Amino acid sequence: MASYSHRWWQGSEAQSMDKKGYRRGSFQSSTSDEDLVEIEGVTLDFSMADDVPPLDREMGEFYSYNGGEMNGTSKMMDFLEEPLPGVGTYEDFNTIDWVREKSRDRDRHREITSKSKESTWALIHSVSDAFSGWLLMLLIGLSAGSLAGLIDISAHWMTDLKEGVCLKGFWLNHEHCCWKAETSFEDRDTCSEWRIWSQLIIGTKEGAFAYILNYFMYVIWALLFSLLAVSLVKGFAPYACGSGIPEIKTILSGFIIRGYLGKWTLIIKTITLVLAVSSGLSLGKEGPLVHVACCCGNILCHLFVKYRKNEAKRREVLSAAAAAGVSVAFGAPIGGVLFSLEEVSYYFPLKTLWRSFFAALVAAFTLRSINPFGNSRLVLFYVEFHTPWHLLELVPFILLGIFGGLWGAFFIRSNIAWCRRRKTTKLGRYPVLEVLVVTAVTAILAFPNEYTRMSTSELISELFNDCGILDYSKLCEYVSNFNSTKGDDLPDRAAGPGVYTAMWQLALALILKVFITIFTFGMKVPSGLFIPSMAVGAIVGRLLGVGMEQLAYYHHDWTIFSGWCSQGADCITPGLYAMVGAAACLGGVTRMTVSLVVIMFELTGGLEYIVPLMAAAMTSKWVADAIGREGIYDAHIRLNGYPFLEAKEEFSHKTLAMDVMRPRRNDPPLTVITQDSMTVEDVEVIINETTYSGYPVVVSRESQRLVGFVLRRDLIISIENARKKQDGIVSTSVIYFTDHSPPLPPSSPSMLKLRSILDLSPFTVTDQTPMEIVVDIFRKLGLRQCLVTHNGKLLGIITKKDVLKHIAQMANQDPDSILFN
Amino acid sequence: MASYSHRWWQGSEAQSMDKKGYRRGSFQSSTSDEDLVEIEGVTLDFSMADDVPPLDREMGEFYSYNGGEMNGTSKMMDFLEEPLPGVGTYEDFNTIDWVREKSRDRDRHREITSKSKESTWALIHSVSDAFSGWLLMLLIGLSAGSLAGLIDISAHWMTDLKEGVCLKGFWLNHEHCCWKAETSFEDRDTCSEWRIWSQLIIGTKEGAFAYILNYFMYVIWALLFSLLAVSLVKGFAPYACGSGIPEIKTILSGFIIRGYLGKWTLIIKTITLVLAVSSGLSLGKEGPLVHVACCCGNILCHLFVKYRKNEAKRREVLSAAAAAGVSVAFGAPIGGVLFSLEEVSYYFPLKTLWRSFFAALVAAFTLRSINPFGNSRLVLFYVEFHTPWHLLELVPFILLGIFGGLWGAFFIRSNIAWCRRRKTTKLGRYPVLEVLVVTAVTAILAFPNEYTRMSTSELISELFNDCGILDYSKLCEYVSNFNSTKGDDLPDRAAGPGVYTAMWQLALALILKVFITIFTFGMKVPSGLFIPSMAVGAIVGRLLGVGMEQLAYYHHDWTIFSGWCSQGADCITPGLYAMVGAAACLGGVTRMTVSLVVIMFELTGGLEYIVPLMAAAMTSKWVADAIGREGIYDAHIRLNGYPFLEAKEEFSHKTLAMDVMRPRRNDPPLTVITQDSMTVEDVEVIINETTYSGYPVVVSRESQRLVGFVLRRDLIISIENARKKQDGIVSTSVIYFTDHSPPLPPSSPSMLKLRSILDLSPFTVTDQTPMEIVVDIFRKLGLRQCLVTHNGKLLGIITKKDVLKHIAQMANQDPDSILFN
Repeated sequence: MASYSHRWWQGSEAQSMDKKGYRRGSFQSSTSDEDLVEIEGVTLDFSMADDVPPLDREMGEFYSYNGGEMNGTSKMMDFLEEPLPGVGTYEDFNTIDWVREKSRDRDRHREITSKSKESTWALIHSVSDAFSGWLLMLLIGLSAGSLAGLIDISAHWMTDLKEGVCLKGFWLNHEHCCWKAETSFEDRDTCSEWRIWSQLIIGTKEGAFAYILNYFMYVIWALLFSLLAVSLVKGFAPYACGSGIPEIKTILSGFIIRGYLGKWTLIIKTITLVLAVSSGLSLGKEGPLVHVACCCGNILCHLFVKYRKNEAKRREVLSAAAAAGVSVAFGAPIGGVLFSLEEVSYYFPLKTLWRSFFAALVAAFTLRSINPFGNSRLVLFYVEFHTPWHLLELVPFILLGIFGGLWGAFFIRSNIAWCRRRKTTKLGRYPVLEVLVVTAVTAILAFPNEYTRMSTSELISELFNDCGILDYSKLCEYVSNFNSTKGDDLPDRAAGPGVYTAMWQLALALILKVFITIFTFGMKVPSGLFIPSMAVGAIVGRLLGVGMEQLAYYHHDWTIFSGWCSQGADCITPGLYAMVGAAACLGGVTRMTVSLVVIMFELTGGLEYIVPLMAAAMTSKWVADAIGREGIYDAHIRLNGYPFLEAKEEFSHKTLAMDVMRPRRNDPPLTVITQDSMTVEDVEVIINETTYSGYPVVVSRESQRLVGFVLRRDLIISIENARKKQDGIVSTSVIYFTDHSPPLPPSSPSMLKLRSILDLSPFTVTDQTPMEIVVDIFRKLGLRQCLVTHNGKLLGIITKKDVLKHIAQMANQDPDSILFN
Repeated sequence: MASYSHRWWQGSEAQSMDKKGYRRGSFQSSTSDEDLVEIEGVTLDFSMADDVPPLDREMGEFYSYNGGEMNGTSKMMDFLEEPLPGVGTYEDFNTIDWVREKSRDRDRHREITSKSKESTWALIHSVSDAFSGWLLMLLIGLSAGSLAGLIDISAHWMTDLKEGVCLKGFWLNHEHCCWKAETSFEDRDTCSEWRIWSQLIIGTKEGAFAYILNYFMYVIWALLFSLLAVSLVKGFAPYACGSGIPEIKTILSGFIIRGYLGKWTLIIKTITLVLAVSSGLSLGKEGPLVHVACCCGNILCHLFVKYRKNEAKRREVLSAAAAAGVSVAFGAPIGGVLFSLEEVSYYFPLKTLWRSFFAALVAAFTLRSINPFGNSRLVLFYVEFHTPWHLLELVPFILLGIFGGLWGAFFIRSNIAWCRRRKTTKLGRYPVLEVLVVTAVTAILAFPNEYTRMSTSELISELFNDCGILDYSKLCEYVSNFNSTKGDDLPDRAAGPGVYTAMWQLALALILKVFITIFTFGMKVPSGLFIPSMAVGAIVGRLLGVGMEQLAYYHHDWTIFSGWCSQGADCITPGLYAMVGAAACLGGVTRMTVSLVVIMFELTGGLEYIVPLMAAAMTSKWVADAIGREGIYDAHIRLNGYPFLEAKEEFSHKTLAMDVMRPRRNDPPLTVITQDSMTVEDVEVIINETTYSGYPVVVSRESQRLVGFVLRRDLIISIENARKKQDGIVSTSVIYFTDHSPPLPPSSPSMLKLRSILDLSPFTVTDQTPMEIVVDIFRKLGLRQCLVTHNGKLLGIITKKDVLKHIAQMANQDPDSILFN
């Protein structure tokens, strides 16, 4: 979504794009993601992508970079020792080289360790360096927890603002306003301090006019909130929209999206998330909280050199931050870590696992000490069930799993189709209008129905709830013919009229949620998918659960119930069905497995109910996978054309490296640079005439023996710099990459040694290597490119983009959907 | 330990070893690990390792393999199409090639998928193939759970047998015997059905003679059990000794130890584990349960072709089995999965994570339905605390962490020193005597002290227990001046005489456990380390906890207690201290992190106490790591010289591939085979004269351009077979690896095409590649060897053994400690 989201405010900037984006050429752009200017500078026009492949355009742009920016560096560079500024950094929308980044970090670490023996100060530096990771985790946990608390409290207040206002203080929400008066759910409406809008304006709660007035106020507030949200996103931080998880997955896999995790995104996403949730749209705050936590992580990285300067190390921190995000979203630290491991992260060493766990715990406990729900509970939906489940109940649980899988597949297909339509038609040009229309429809349809009027997380809470004797909600309105109140355990009993009404309302709420969510996810406001998915599942589960319960009550003599469900026994827990349904639907949409079950386990806190959850989650995943392999996040990644190499899917086709490498069979041969016979001019001609991001260096054109690999970016910077700073470097100077200068006639101009920018250990595979192995190498080592040889001779090159295009082609998808390198 | 364990029963077989192990040469040895004959056939004499490096010896042995065994295959082989039997399998004590194994599985999968479109039967086959993994997990879970239940019940009974016998039926243990009579811990001794030995023999429970008789019977039973255990291990399954986790780690990293996970090992380990635990030795059943579960996994693999024939796929199953093992050991399925991920497994794709979780859950629930503890609890040590902890208590928790770290480091050093001594001195020749002596010492010292007489897991349970009003154990004998019994929450109070006695006895128990465990772990009986480590920590924790409690009681006016611990308040929970101490000590010994905290979390079932556990585990790991980097399992792996490439440690030295590759600078050049100019005789000479496990194939000796890599094993089998089965193959026949035969004079004998055994995609790196990257490649891709090139010319080779030797050298360890390839 983010990539698409650039389109609608570029307008006047479109012209500058024609000049091949001068502004993006700065190789001195630091790795700082904090400047708004930079964020807005990223205005790629994807409609151009059909003509020029982005890789080429990127490179084309770079070629025309403004050399004047070099003037900032006044120091004379020693070309052999000191690395030039810019060498070793990345362009925006490019893939990092994991191997190089990790090598750089090891170099840095080695240096600190060897220095630490020299002085006490260096020793302290070394120790503080070792512990900076833990300190960073602590800070991330604290900030993610605090922000989550802030968001919870604000969203709670603003949601209630749609209903009315507190006389004791306008900043109090309904619950806090009636803190003392409240004893149960039913009493909530009797609190005198809380005034609904009709009371305030026309002084009455009853009557048709009051109802219409409240209705009107509800819709108006919703529209106001969503208008504010979309305007803020549009005006200040376009990256703040959506859930952010597809982009974070891509970033963690080694892609650069500058500003995506910056300061402005953080601020705007936090504010607009509150607004979007409060507006009553069918969206959740869980996905965006992951984005918020990752922004915190990225910004806090700037405090430590170790993480600021290294893209690979920074990604380790972001993985941990994602875990902290889920941890605060659900109050499930273990589930958060597993979510990060399973769903989000790409490179997840064990050290990161342990640190993520720490960050997740700190975040969860910070949130708990803020105590936004006022109940000292860590988890979002605390549930406690009292009745064990019976083996036969696995049948309805598996049915819920099948429903979850079908819903997941249906949702993904419809949502992707709608997003594609938005992307390709005029619809995408009116994001504000779109948000307002969807909000208006949601609000108008939601108000009349009690279960859609309340916030979605409240609805889920109520659906999960096991009816006890103290519950007075409509869902628990059973025919009360019990005299002995033995604890909370209530026998199965006939449903009262309240339950039947609730069933109808829930069925209507289900239909609304199912359809409106498809249009909501992907709009230009922060929107998470967890809560709406869970709501759909919880409604279906509760409906089925109540159905089962009534069946057991009226037909306890049926053979299927004999032996475990006698009359008056408490054998069916509709709340558990709701929970299983929620897990199934969430699983169908996101294709989470272990993390899903563990998050749900943490909500209930008992291993007792893990088997039903697992049965539903497994069924749901199988059913959904049978219809479409991709989860919603992967589908959105593909929709946006990000270069994401899926780690879960095995590449199963029998193609060879030679089928994928460039140049193709009838293309001109690979552009190479020789190690000691080309002049500056020759190299500049190659740079001008081609658009590749790097060139292999060979012994000689005839032998095609590979020496190393040099990046275009490094080459341009070095030549440019040498021409300016180094005496005697002219167009006819010979460039050499060898250790010693080649023997040349004494009259020739001074030579340029560029061995320092040469990568002497490029990865190579033979042309006969099966692509499955090549894909594995790219995935596991995090390569950007790989050279192809045949019998020791250099033959071609495979880039990550080539691999992704090949995978898309093999899966019968459009290979040109892969936009970036 | 296993490698060492071969030495003491070889005796008469030593001579056959001089003939360079004819018996091991069979390349037809299937991947079946089930034959006892094979197990006993593996009689490597490590004292020879100083003269001939094992790799070379391995190969030397193989060279003299008995070709006659080929006669079993009557079918005429087509050399070009059908793979020969033996080609593509591995020798015992060799490393597998992960890339090749995974490619083979993908080929198999492709074939099934492509066939599935042809007929309904093939489609069913394809579907059943896809679900066979899940079925296998179900079977593993069921069998691991059942075996764990069996072991628990038997060990419980036999432990009680040392005390006395049940008159109702000798097969009943103390608890079951007194099921009805028993109401509390105190009443246990008053049950009339249970007779202790002195009652049975001399008719009285009291008096010095009765005490001595009971003492004597206790020691005799202990000796009997341990003698039986060590004899069974020695006689039937030498691999059944020890904890098995170091070997399983090595096997999972891609090493072959035939028979280690076989049928006999399973049977003998199950029986001897019961005996060893019952004998009262200071050992636990948790590690061996992992081994037992892995044996189940390995044996069940034989039911499915997919897993039987593929070493890589089998290792995925074993990872899941290890998770199931820990799951039943502690009743902690999530912790089990994380243990497998963190500690045991090497290659752990997400698919395995999900399946492991399933297997772990099935195992845990199978165990629970067997209900060996008779309390319907899933977990081994169920605890419930009632008092929250205070932030200031983190200080004693961190102190416990420091103790845990120190104990861990001390234990590892002493245990390794002792094991090394056993290995290098005559001590190792008398395993039975050693076990008997240690058992006698343990039993004699343990009987007088109540806390060492009881089984270690009972002890831990009691230490973890929070004293409630119904507890009558000595540890809970407080001065009872309370009248109001407000639930289970008891205020802090003065310790009674029972507590002081218990403190002294616990201190003595601590000393015994600390020292005897060092000598116990590594003996020739199954022995786990979790329980003894936890016991040490729990004792220290309880001591500290009671100390803190008394301090708070007598000095509640101190500033440190003000505000949270007023008089009569219940503010210190000694049981929690015991738990934190146990976690710290276990962490210090094994260096587990996340899995440790999660297992402990599952024992308590509440997130409340996760912060103390985390604080202690982190401190413990830091302290222990500062003293010695290796955990106990890694230390034992190194002691045994297994080729295990640690995934957690970064290689941090700045060496290059050229420093590690063979041949070294002054050695003769690398032995290569040319692609189309060498005769059968030439190749046989190379095979005879060298001992390498494989040879690079080049275009020509002059150009040194690499074509591919051929394994020695495949080469020998193919030539041998061709000479027998193919007409016209003589010593002067030219071997060619090219697609088409080279032009030769018509008079020359028919040529031998061996392209089918040539690996056309060998991994190569340049000589300038930093070793850190090479180590990374070996680790992540699971390579066996890697070729080194310079400017496109083949220069040398690096094997996994070279890498391991280099790492050992860089860490100032003896590089010759790496024994296998």
